[in-house]
Amino acid sequence: LKRVVVVGAGFGGLEVATHLRGVPVEVTVVDRNNFHTFQPLLYQVATAGLNAADVAPAVRGLFHRQANVAFRRGSATGVDWENRRLFLAEQDPLPFDHLVVGAGSVTNFFGVPGAAEHAFPLYTLADATRLRNHVLERFEAAESHPDLVADGALTFVIVGGGPTGVETAGALAELIHAVLRKDFRGTLDVARAQVVVVEMEPALLGAFHPASQRHALDTLRSRRVEVRLGARVSAVEPTRITLAGGEIISAHTLIWAAGVQANPLAGALGVAQGRGGRIVVDADLSIPGHPEAYAIGDIAHVAAGDGALPQLAPVAMQAGRHVAAQIKADLEGGRSKPFRYVDKGTMATIGRRAAVAELPHGLRLSGTPAWFAWLGLHLLYVAGNRNRLSVLLNWGWSYLTWDRGPRLILRSEEP
Amino acid sequence: LKRVVVVGAGFGGLEVATHLRGVPVEVTVVDRNNFHTFQPLLYQVATAGLNAADVAPAVRGLFHRQANVAFRRGSATGVDWENRRLFLAEQDPLPFDHLVVGAGSVTNFFGVPGAAEHAFPLYTLADATRLRNHVLERFEAAESHPDLVADGALTFVIVGGGPTGVETAGALAELIHAVLRKDFRGTLDVARAQVVVVEMEPALLGAFHPASQRHALDTLRSRRVEVRLGARVSAVEPTRITLAGGEIISAHTLIWAAGVQANPLAGALGVAQGRGGRIVVDADLSIPGHPEAYAIGDIAHVAAGDGALPQLAPVAMQAGRHVAAQIKADLEGGRSKPFRYVDKGTMATIGRRAAVAELPHGLRLSGTPAWFAWLGLHLLYVAGNRNRLSVLLNWGWSYLTWDRGPRLILRSEEP
Repeated sequence: LKRVVVVGAGFGGLEVATHLRGVPVEVTVVDRNNFHTFQPLLYQVATAGLNAADVAPAVRGLFHRQANVAFRRGSATGVDWENRRLFLAEQDPLPFDHLVVGAGSVTNFFGVPGAAEHAFPLYTLADATRLRNHVLERFEAAESHPDLVADGALTFVIVGGGPTGVETAGALAELIHAVLRKDFRGTLDVARAQVVVVEMEPALLGAFHPASQRHALDTLRSRRVEVRLGARVSAVEPTRITLAGGEIISAHTLIWAAGVQANPLAGALGVAQGRGGRIVVDADLSIPGHPEAYAIGDIAHVAAGDGALPQLAPVAMQAGRHVAAQIKADLEGGRSKPFRYVDKGTMATIGRRAAVAELPHGLRLSGTPAWFAWLGLHLLYVAGNRNRLSVLLNWGWSYLTWDRGPRLILRSEEP
Repeated sequence: LKRVVVVGAGFGGLEVATHLRGVPVEVTVVDRNNFHTFQPLLYQVATAGLNAADVAPAVRGLFHRQANVAFRRGSATGVDWENRRLFLAEQDPLPFDHLVVGAGSVTNFFGVPGAAEHAFPLYTLADATRLRNHVLERFEAAESHPDLVADGALTFVIVGGGPTGVETAGALAELIHAVLRKDFRGTLDVARAQVVVVEMEPALLGAFHPASQRHALDTLRSRRVEVRLGARVSAVEPTRITLAGGEIISAHTLIWAAGVQANPLAGALGVAQGRGGRIVVDADLSIPGHPEAYAIGDIAHVAAGDGALPQLAPVAMQAGRHVAAQIKADLEGGRSKPFRYVDKGTMATIGRRAAVAELPHGLRLSGTPAWFAWLGLHLLYVAGNRNRLSVLLNWGWSYLTWDRGPRLILRSEEP
């Protein structure tokens, strides 16, 4: 049987494996984590709305009923193209006949001094739980040491006004003003807490229609989020943030939602890289010069017009399905076909009953209808029925009670 | 208003605070964690059956609707009895009129060489998630490096055959043989995994009736758990365990369920200590010489017959209610009353549809009826409706699907 090795159990990688069901190949999905991460909901883990496990099903569990898929936990470090083997850190190489590279992105700090050391990125599950621990911990610290408030303990700066930044800002404001206000009633003036979004461009949600951008801005501001447009962070220290122009914000927390770059694996493959280090692929998603290998998802640079397709889950998923079809066609002696991305729209949620959605044919939703559409769609796409139920339970509970469940400060290093 | 300071948000401490509802006092609950830990279910977190947050509600949330209770996260380090102040690490002291010490226990390694460094205790929530990460990680490591199996990667030794040891052994065997067997089908012979219970005494579940002890032993053995009675661990190394007598077991995991001792705070109070360092209390649970102070729960030594009351949640809860009543009586000029513990029985679960329960009047249950009784009772006692729902969801799911939800390897130090 031909061996298909898929690097990365993200949206793209899982689609490839799932759509090779019943195809006479041996699929091995490789990931450094033993779970898939549903990244669009990481900000809810970070703001104590969901459990870590709710957005992170074990990969092995997802394939209990698909006999031709195995999982290997490991870090891919490079490819021996000649002998068709994938190198893994501290493990024997994995031989392949077809390789699919879907290793995703890592945070890009754009060289801002101090950002890599002190900022809180929000791209992995570990990032999300680390941020949750830190945010809740700052409130506890401010209660025991009230002078820390002036020092910035309750000031949360979010860099980046894209969907992640907007969603995090909205959820954080809700956590603070709806839940923590009750938690600390009487002992700490939670109203002094501030959420600030810093965005370089003159508008939030750059990829959206101006009406959606305005809706997001107005909603965030009405929910006590300070939005600074046309502003840029130039340096990060543990308790203060310097903006270009010299202004200093006292803040113990800088959440980095400003950008990503290709996983360093892309640079280790000896292939052409595009913007952000992404692997430039042919029209059929194969890697030029390596017809047996494909790149999909955030790590792939798929030409579209003057630029590339956006780094979004639907792009990765459609690409995954395309690659599965390509591999199947190849086995059956069929011809390679170009990948065509069908844009079914984009959404961003801002908070309780507030979201924006842009659908094909210029249809736009905002407010409650967009929020319900967002909820339904995300519930549908969360992998695994148990996770779907758990997410539904947590959302239902939060909606009805204005409470948040998993708001524990849990550090593994603690005794 | 009189100030009541309660050290410890365990079963006893929460009962004190709850039962002071409507009483004209200011209650402050102090704990080093911002959550209550439902310890009887920690082994389910460790074996991927429940989320951490399911067994750990935020303390502040539990008192949203009780205005006279505040929470303070902090580590109590001692008491200034003369000025009635509780010392906290890195914080100003907290003044009190009444003090309730319910700081619980810490693991007791009984001086076994290497145990403190290499054993996995199971007493705190951080212990439970650390053990879950480690167990799952060993299976992943054994798949990539099959020679690790002979080295003990899949051998899990549990020291202590009390309820915690029995419950952990049963749950671990179930995780391995029902879930991980499917996870690693074809790539790792999971049947080579071993769960071993090492108990010093000639029977499991020392405090139970011989019929219950036999039921536990037979059930564990039928579920492929090896039970070594009359055996003792004399040394622990990272990959091997030495038994008294010299036998060596290759094992990467030693779970320590062998015993506890009083929280070191007991020793810092300058009061009389009994067995295991527990604070000796008077018949009304007050600390001798300090009528304004009480000790309850695992940290208290309450004389009963020749010994002391057992370190169980029901003892702590009844003691908490008694102390709340004492404080109320004191405010109203009433008289101090002795504490009377009413034994309503004990239970231990062994796994799917297997448990033992001993009720008053010599009534004993085992097997499925005991298991359902155990489920119902624990569901009832889990604090918070959201947690109750989430536990119910996870249990129902596991029961119907033979699956386990939150089986992620998540380390906060990982990028």
